[in-house]
Amino acid sequence: MYEFIDILIEEDVKIVETSGRSPESLMPRLKEHGFTVLHKVANVKNAVSAEKLGVDAIIIVGNETGGHPGMGDVGTLVMLPRAVDSVNIPVIAGGGFSDGRGLISALSLGAEGIVMGTRFMATQEAPIHENVKQWMVSANETDTVVIQRNIGSPSRVALNAVSKEVDKLENEGATIEELIPLITGQRSKKVYFEGNLDGGIWSCGQSVGLIKEILTVNELIKQIVQEAKNSFEFIQSRIESIRT
Amino acid sequence: MYEFIDILIEEDVKIVETSGRSPESLMPRLKEHGFTVLHKVANVKNAVSAEKLGVDAIIIVGNETGGHPGMGDVGTLVMLPRAVDSVNIPVIAGGGFSDGRGLISALSLGAEGIVMGTRFMATQEAPIHENVKQWMVSANETDTVVIQRNIGSPSRVALNAVSKEVDKLENEGATIEELIPLITGQRSKKVYFEGNLDGGIWSCGQSVGLIKEILTVNELIKQIVQEAKNSFEFIQSRIESIRT
Repeated sequence: MYEFIDILIEEDVKIVETSGRSPESLMPRLKEHGFTVLHKVANVKNAVSAEKLGVDAIIIVGNETGGHPGMGDVGTLVMLPRAVDSVNIPVIAGGGFSDGRGLISALSLGAEGIVMGTRFMATQEAPIHENVKQWMVSANETDTVVIQRNIGSPSRVALNAVSKEVDKLENEGATIEELIPLITGQRSKKVYFEGNLDGGIWSCGQSVGLIKEILTVNELIKQIVQEAKNSFEFIQSRIESIRT
Repeated sequence: MYEFIDILIEEDVKIVETSGRSPESLMPRLKEHGFTVLHKVANVKNAVSAEKLGVDAIIIVGNETGGHPGMGDVGTLVMLPRAVDSVNIPVIAGGGFSDGRGLISALSLGAEGIVMGTRFMATQEAPIHENVKQWMVSANETDTVVIQRNIGSPSRVALNAVSKEVDKLENEGATIEELIPLITGQRSKKVYFEGNLDGGIWSCGQSVGLIKEILTVNELIKQIVQEAKNSFEFIQSRIESIRT
């Protein structure tokens, strides 16, 4: 890992996201060089531990997230306020966010911002095959599945022939050795770069069900800002209707 | 069911919540008598069908909900805006809500209101045993489990000796006949009324992790209103900090 930090210093990067394991061993060097460290977690306990290690902010993801949700199935709607109540550093929310309504909902629960992965995959700039982007536009919110919970590494991926097979094998008690030929990242490349939708497993969050079109990143951000304004005004109108 | 409607007419009830199956057979009689009908669903498809049947509003619950979530594990954060986008009647949100922050988050996603079940169980007025209420205050967001998915009737319940046993039996392929002695409502009564926390299964949502104290209903509602105001002001402050 230290060689990555050397590159970050060389390239004058200011903000680092750590995740997947405790950032403890990296913290002295990261702090020595003045990085802002965001640590991503999938449960409240790890958020509390990371705060103690001196990270600057927490990114917490709920069960809706593509990639790695927690071992349980706690939704972002509950996980996020629990994290906000449990640490004193800023919390950024992930898992289920794809638009400006979601951004305002995260703020309402005490987050300082959101992270989006799935939504940015369906942008014109994303360096993945057009077939994947088109699938994302047509997919709905039930078209993902969490696999690898049985082997302690839960992963939310798009529903396809391979993830269905992995799910089936896991239910039959398959070992990690039996699953590796199916879950290997080598196969995922067939999806991303060759556009073979059943080529392997690939991370995808439930928010895929909310994606309606492939935009440029610029258009997407502008749209999110506009949606956030609309969402805020909707809340305001409902509060005013109570007062009057 | 018709005899229930007779009682509702007699008692001059104005609003009816239907759920668990299509309200189709009840609608002519309910509409004839001018009831406002809220139909509760756990997926978007059923929301669309209910709108076509003429219900007045949808209650949609995500995977966080106590009682019956959908067959998938779609969180409220995604399910709710999907429902709002899919029907033209008002949508009320359930699953994961316990406080004023949650209320504002629901509005931000386009809901006209929230339903809470779990939170009201931990109020002084709730006619259930004190042991249950105390457990709820001490429980965290991971202390629930979805059982009965294998038999087509998913149910989120409190984690206890019985629900763990049901979960285990289901993973071993148990039939509904084998599960009934454990999941029967007769056993649930031992929890609710005798305070035996391992007496049977009982519905409990993930929002149990956010419950910190047993309040009167009056105190709870006042607290929610105050929290909602704070949440709204927090959003406002974040928007202003961008503008300046």
